[in-house]
Amino acid sequence: MSTERDVLDAAARAREASHGLALATRARKDRALLAMADGLVAAHDDLLAANAEDVARAEAGGTPPNIVDRLRLTAERLAGMAQGLRDVAALPDPVGEVVRGSTLANGLELRQVRVPFGVVGMIYEARPNVTADAAGICLKSGNAVLLRGSSSARSSNAAIVGVLREAAVSAGLEADVVQLVPGDSHDSVKALMRARGLVDVLIPRGGAGLIRSVVEESTVPVIETGVGNCHVYVDRAADLDKALAIVLNAKTHRTSVCNAAESLLVHADVADAFLPRVVTALQDAGVTIHGDTAFTAYDGVEAASEEDYATEYLSLDISAAVVPDLDGAIRHIRRYSSQHSDAIVTEDQSAARHFTAAVDSAAVLVNASTRFTDGGEFGFGAEIGISTQKLHARGPMGLPEMTSTKYVVTGDGHVRP
Amino acid sequence: MSTERDVLDAAARAREASHGLALATRARKDRALLAMADGLVAAHDDLLAANAEDVARAEAGGTPPNIVDRLRLTAERLAGMAQGLRDVAALPDPVGEVVRGSTLANGLELRQVRVPFGVVGMIYEARPNVTADAAGICLKSGNAVLLRGSSSARSSNAAIVGVLREAAVSAGLEADVVQLVPGDSHDSVKALMRARGLVDVLIPRGGAGLIRSVVEESTVPVIETGVGNCHVYVDRAADLDKALAIVLNAKTHRTSVCNAAESLLVHADVADAFLPRVVTALQDAGVTIHGDTAFTAYDGVEAASEEDYATEYLSLDISAAVVPDLDGAIRHIRRYSSQHSDAIVTEDQSAARHFTAAVDSAAVLVNASTRFTDGGEFGFGAEIGISTQKLHARGPMGLPEMTSTKYVVTGDGHVRP
Repeated sequence: MSTERDVLDAAARAREASHGLALATRARKDRALLAMADGLVAAHDDLLAANAEDVARAEAGGTPPNIVDRLRLTAERLAGMAQGLRDVAALPDPVGEVVRGSTLANGLELRQVRVPFGVVGMIYEARPNVTADAAGICLKSGNAVLLRGSSSARSSNAAIVGVLREAAVSAGLEADVVQLVPGDSHDSVKALMRARGLVDVLIPRGGAGLIRSVVEESTVPVIETGVGNCHVYVDRAADLDKALAIVLNAKTHRTSVCNAAESLLVHADVADAFLPRVVTALQDAGVTIHGDTAFTAYDGVEAASEEDYATEYLSLDISAAVVPDLDGAIRHIRRYSSQHSDAIVTEDQSAARHFTAAVDSAAVLVNASTRFTDGGEFGFGAEIGISTQKLHARGPMGLPEMTSTKYVVTGDGHVRP
Repeated sequence: MSTERDVLDAAARAREASHGLALATRARKDRALLAMADGLVAAHDDLLAANAEDVARAEAGGTPPNIVDRLRLTAERLAGMAQGLRDVAALPDPVGEVVRGSTLANGLELRQVRVPFGVVGMIYEARPNVTADAAGICLKSGNAVLLRGSSSARSSNAAIVGVLREAAVSAGLEADVVQLVPGDSHDSVKALMRARGLVDVLIPRGGAGLIRSVVEESTVPVIETGVGNCHVYVDRAADLDKALAIVLNAKTHRTSVCNAAESLLVHADVADAFLPRVVTALQDAGVTIHGDTAFTAYDGVEAASEEDYATEYLSLDISAAVVPDLDGAIRHIRRYSSQHSDAIVTEDQSAARHFTAAVDSAAVLVNASTRFTDGGEFGFGAEIGISTQKLHARGPMGLPEMTSTKYVVTGDGHVRP
C-alpha cells in the first residue's frame, strides 16, 4: 500500500516536472547532460563505493559470477557512462522537429511537430550503466524518467541518480526530471504498470520473463523490447564462404545479446556442401548444435526438439534445420521467429527480394550478420532498446523514437463552413 | 467458449490471409477497392433490405430515434460508402515507402520501409458505413481486418462484408482479408482483445465507455481514439469577433463529434467585453452554458460543477470559466482536457507561441475552430479515427498511420568486427 502511494507520488512529481522539461531549450538540456557526465566523473570514488556494497551483497547471496560481473562498476565503465551522456548531448534535439507541414486550401497552416511523451518509466535488470544511459536519452528527448532498476543494484542506482539530479538542478531543470522509483519489491513495478495517466509509456529492458509480464499486466502503454530468436537462412544461391562467416559472427560474436543468431536454416540443395563446414566451424567455436536429422548425421550434433526452435538461447547453442526451399525457410521463420532480426545469405537477387518482403521482422538482413541490428551500428548515436513490436517504433530506438507528435494548426479566425 | 474458438479461428484465417495481402501490389489492391465500390452499388437493393431488418429490430426494441438514424442506410449513404472506397483507391500506397535510408560507413545499405501491421481489429458502434470505410483503409494499407460492429447492425454488416469479400476475391485476394467477427455478444469482443499474437492492433471507435474498456482489458496493443473534451480559450489579446465565430462554430457546427468544443475559457481582462456577447450568441443557438460565478451572473447560465469541466457533452451544452491569465488557461486545460483538440484565440504572437508549446494535445489550434481536427480537413483523404494517445499515432490517422516499418539491411558478407 505505502509502496503504491510512494510510486504514484513520484509519478505525479515526474508529471509536474515534465511540463518544464518539455519546454526546455536544447542548450539547457545539453548543459544538464554535460553536467551529469562531469558529475559522474567527479563522484567516481563514491559511486565505486556504493557499487561495492551491491557487489558484496550479491556475492554473499550466491549470485552467479556472470550476473555479478554485469552489476560491477569499474573506472572504465564509469568513464563509458560519462562519455555516453556527452554523446547524447552532441546529438540533435528531436523535440520541435517538424515532421510534416503544409498550407491547406483554406489557408490554415498545418504542422506536425515532435513533442516529448511526458513521463517515461524504465524497468530494467542488473547493469547500473543503464541508469545513466536511459536518463540521458530521456532527458534529451524532453521526457521525465522514472527508473526502476534491479534491487540488486539499489546502492549503485541511488548514488548515480543522486549525481544526475544534482546536475539537472545545476542546469536549471527540476530534480524530479530524473527519479528512482521508490521501493524495491515487485509492488513498485506493479504500481508503475498501473499508473496510467501519470506515466505515458513503459519500456521494460531485460529477460523475456520480465518483458512478458510487463506487456501482459501493464495498463500503461508499453514498448516491448529485445527478445530475439534470430535466424540465418543459407539459400541455395549463397556464397558459402560469406555464409560461414555470417553464421559464425551472428552466433559467436557475443552470445548474450538479443541480436545474436539462435537458429540456422540451410537450403536442401546446399546441405551436402555446407553442413560439414558449418558443423565443424561452429563446434570448433564451442557451439552446441541442436539439429534436425540432416544435422544429427554429424558427430556431436544433438537432436532438436520443437522447443529448441522456439528458444532464445543467449548462449553457445544454436538450433539448426535443413529446409526444402526458400518458402520453407520463410514458413519456418514465420512460425518461430520473435520478429527481431532474420537474415538471408544469397547471391540471388530474386530470392533476396522475396525474403525481405515476406519476412516480417524488425530487421531483415541480406548477406549481413544479425549482430548489425543495433542503434550504434545504424548510426543513431544512442539507443534506448530494440523494439520488437509493430506499434510506434520497430527496431533500434534512438531519440526520435522517444517522442510523440502534435499538430499545430494556425488560422486567422477560421471556422468550418 | 465456442464464441472464443470462432473468433480465434477467424483471427488465424486473417493472419494467414494477411501474408498474401502484405505482398499484393498497389494495382491489385486498387482493383479490389474499385470492385468493392461497384459491388456495393450493384447490391443496392439487397443492402437496403438487410438494413431494413436492423432498423425494424431497433425500432421494435425502442431504440431512440437518433440512434436509429445512425443505423439507417439510404441510397445517398450507400453512394457515399462506394465513393469512399474509390477515394481510397486513388490515394498513394503507404506500403513500401522508404521512410529513411542511408549507406553506413561500412557499406551496409540501410532502409526503413513501411509495412502493414498484419491483422487489424476494429470495434465500433452503430453506423454500418464504418464497415466499408474501415475495410477499405485496412485493405489499402495491406492489413487484413476483423470487423466487430454493433450487434444492432448485424444484418447490414453481414450483407456489406459479403459484398466486400466477393470483390476481394474477384481481384485475386483472399476473401479472409475482410471478415466480420463471429458472434455478437460481448464474448466476441473479449476474445478479440485477448488474441495477442494473432491480432496486431485493435482500434475501438465509439463512446468513451467502449474505448475505456478496450484500453483497460486488451492485451492486444490498442490505438485509443476519439474522446474529445476540447477547449477554446479566448485570450486577452483576442479579436473578439473571431473569438465569437470560433466558439460558435466549435460548439454548434456539429455537436455529436469528438472535435466539438465542450469548454470555453475567457481571460479575465476581456470578460466584461466578451461574456455578454458570447452568452447571448450561444443561448440564441440553443446552447446551455454551465459556468463559473462570472458566467452565472448572466440569465440562464447554470452553475458548473467540477464534473462539468471534465465532461464531453456531445450536445448543445458547454462548460465555461473565466481564467486570470494565459497560464491559468493552460493549467485548466492540463487538468481537464482529454488532449484531443484545444484552441487559443489571440492576436498576440507570444501568447500563441506559449500556448502551442505548453498545451500537450493531439491538435493545438490558433485562431481556428477545433472542428478542423479531422483527416479530411487535414488533407489525408481517408481517416480511420483520431488518436488521442501518444504512442504510434496522434491526431487524425490516415493510411501511413495504419502501417509499421521494418529495416532492410543489405550487405555483401558483412560481419561485425
